[in-house]
Amino acid sequence: MFDITALCKAAKKASYGICAADSNQKNAALSEIALAISKRRAEIIFENEKDLENAKKSGMSESMIDRLSLTDKRIDGIIEGILQVTELPDPSGRVLSEEVRPNGLKITKISVPIGVIGIIYESRPNVTADAAALCIKSGNAVILKGGKEAINSNRILCKIMRDAVSKAGLSEDTVCFVDSVSREDTAALMKMKDYVDLLIPRGGAGLIRATVENSLIPVIETGTGNCHIYVDEHADEKKALDIIFNAKTSRVSVCNAAESLLIHESRLGLLDKIKERLDQKSVSLYCSSACFNALSSKEKVFLATEEDYYTEYLDYKMSVKEVSSLSDAIAHINEHSSHHSECIVTENEEAAALFLKGVDSAAVYHNASTRFTDGFEFGLGAEIGISTQKMHARGPMGLSELNTYKFVIKGNGQIR
Amino acid sequence: MFDITALCKAAKKASYGICAADSNQKNAALSEIALAISKRRAEIIFENEKDLENAKKSGMSESMIDRLSLTDKRIDGIIEGILQVTELPDPSGRVLSEEVRPNGLKITKISVPIGVIGIIYESRPNVTADAAALCIKSGNAVILKGGKEAINSNRILCKIMRDAVSKAGLSEDTVCFVDSVSREDTAALMKMKDYVDLLIPRGGAGLIRATVENSLIPVIETGTGNCHIYVDEHADEKKALDIIFNAKTSRVSVCNAAESLLIHESRLGLLDKIKERLDQKSVSLYCSSACFNALSSKEKVFLATEEDYYTEYLDYKMSVKEVSSLSDAIAHINEHSSHHSECIVTENEEAAALFLKGVDSAAVYHNASTRFTDGFEFGLGAEIGISTQKMHARGPMGLSELNTYKFVIKGNGQIR
Repeated sequence: MFDITALCKAAKKASYGICAADSNQKNAALSEIALAISKRRAEIIFENEKDLENAKKSGMSESMIDRLSLTDKRIDGIIEGILQVTELPDPSGRVLSEEVRPNGLKITKISVPIGVIGIIYESRPNVTADAAALCIKSGNAVILKGGKEAINSNRILCKIMRDAVSKAGLSEDTVCFVDSVSREDTAALMKMKDYVDLLIPRGGAGLIRATVENSLIPVIETGTGNCHIYVDEHADEKKALDIIFNAKTSRVSVCNAAESLLIHESRLGLLDKIKERLDQKSVSLYCSSACFNALSSKEKVFLATEEDYYTEYLDYKMSVKEVSSLSDAIAHINEHSSHHSECIVTENEEAAALFLKGVDSAAVYHNASTRFTDGFEFGLGAEIGISTQKMHARGPMGLSELNTYKFVIKGNGQIR
Repeated sequence: MFDITALCKAAKKASYGICAADSNQKNAALSEIALAISKRRAEIIFENEKDLENAKKSGMSESMIDRLSLTDKRIDGIIEGILQVTELPDPSGRVLSEEVRPNGLKITKISVPIGVIGIIYESRPNVTADAAALCIKSGNAVILKGGKEAINSNRILCKIMRDAVSKAGLSEDTVCFVDSVSREDTAALMKMKDYVDLLIPRGGAGLIRATVENSLIPVIETGTGNCHIYVDEHADEKKALDIIFNAKTSRVSVCNAAESLLIHESRLGLLDKIKERLDQKSVSLYCSSACFNALSSKEKVFLATEEDYYTEYLDYKMSVKEVSSLSDAIAHINEHSSHHSECIVTENEEAAALFLKGVDSAAVYHNASTRFTDGFEFGLGAEIGISTQKMHARGPMGLSELNTYKFVIKGNGQIR
């Protein structure tokens, strides 16, 4: 039987080793991983084939099967990603503040790895290597728990990474793999508070909710995006049309895509043009009655329910509602949003300032698409997820967010 | 019946008001509170008397009754504390980083209040005012849930604070009081994830465990301190004696007091002197067999069980164990500690560096008492608690740790 406690204990022990490793050692481990994945790609493709066959048998959709597939090109992408992580600065050991107190104590606040990070994810086996690379670079041990549909792919990737890490002189348990598809083991992992310091669920709303509800370990919620575009009274028409079209349709399946349009009641005349633009991608609109009535064509136009305004469609669908003031827009967003990314389109600086201050979301935009909320676009170099909660990290999480800090105090016998 | 959902919704609504308030408004609210507490102290003492009477009837210990008591002097202390908080810098609105990306987007990372903070605490009614002051100054609404033994004192303090905050032009719901002694209401509060952004339990290990186990809201665990002093092979004798005596006995009931002594096996000869010093305060020692045997006097000396090494005594008791190496000391601490504060006593800089790096605790000391882990001693000006976990805040939490951040992105029509 799979022993989740033993696995977590092993990860904890390994975490002290990787925590003490210097940048060269961590980069060497990443280089070994990249090399090993390249050399052993035939094994990866062989194991991935098993997952793909099972997926076909189970009647998985084409798009899901595509996500699951590890082609030569995707393996090259994984390797490229790992090598990029070696180029990033080491987030650990930075002096965040330093002070000599009146009693002579020197107090230094210094960034340090978190310890053991558990990643619970669905489907895409790329995450296995991406997440491990970010954890290693940031000095953490990682416990990987992927979806059952990718178990063969994930198992071989973890085996290759464990071998490589060991070759680089670190404990193989720096990368731990939950080789189980049992829900009991996942539930048990969430209780391993003594050994696991952080859980990051990556996947749909159901996975995230289940993790929050069952975990005793601190959780960072990621990637739910009911993002809003607010077209203000003073919006520039072209900017509004471009931003709405881009934010809604450039990639509908991602968390930073817009899901809801708010429009000042004085600008309802713009709705026909907005719809015309969105018609290029056959976007359905779920409208308040005022917006419904303002639209000339009712093709793909529906009346919204209150539920629509809370919905992250991840599809060619958008909810649409008028507001009678900026403060109504802010209040609506704070009530309905998942607090990911929201945008105001306006030429009025005062309105923009009020929106940016009043909207309680990780990323707030003035005249730009919400699609920019992303670790690479923000210049973090990489991203383990986009946090939609407020503790520890908010918005795109890079290597720095996989560190905590400690206080180091040097004295010469001081007592209190 | 008490309606916890309505209370949390009201706090959420009020949080948007206090979030938008500037430093002057927040300081004005704090001044109003300080003034009102001073003016209405007769009411406070009257209500506190009720709690004291109930406590005496229920047979509460003298020391607990003392903690519960609000004397004129203590009320002066509360007022003084609030006025000190007005003097501290506003943690919100600080630019944490700022960058113009190649596409022209200006991305600013800015500190902002967390939103609604729930404080669940036991006994001392001072916490009611202290915690509210820190939350207000940091721009947060606060929900206060105190212990049932202080319900009358807490109720009047909250009433006074709500009146004062309202007089200063902020919503009275900036300070919310859970006027209930039912466990169901406390449990319900812990599920109010849509309205409450953070829970901070302040109290014993049982309260903290119950909060972690039941909360869907992120929790910051505070104040459990199984702190260690390690006397290294190269320890200075005087420093070792002073630090052990101070860390163990200067105040036994606090979380930064030392609970466990590790001593290098080459220094067992020091144990008699350590005991002699600790005998001044009648400290009982719970020893490994080697340490037991090394002690000449067995008075107040006992053999330790494994359980002792995990125990936060909060009493004139200390566990004692020899280690055969520095790495054994580090491993023992990482296994048994609550990750609060630990100290190495040594004149060897290399040993100190290894200890400070390898020990996984919030505060790690070289040649100084663990008793310094404290918001005031660290120069934070005030403290809402000492975090023993790694997410968001670690060690003493001041005003800055009651803020999160958001990304503000300014563009001129950028799309991706």
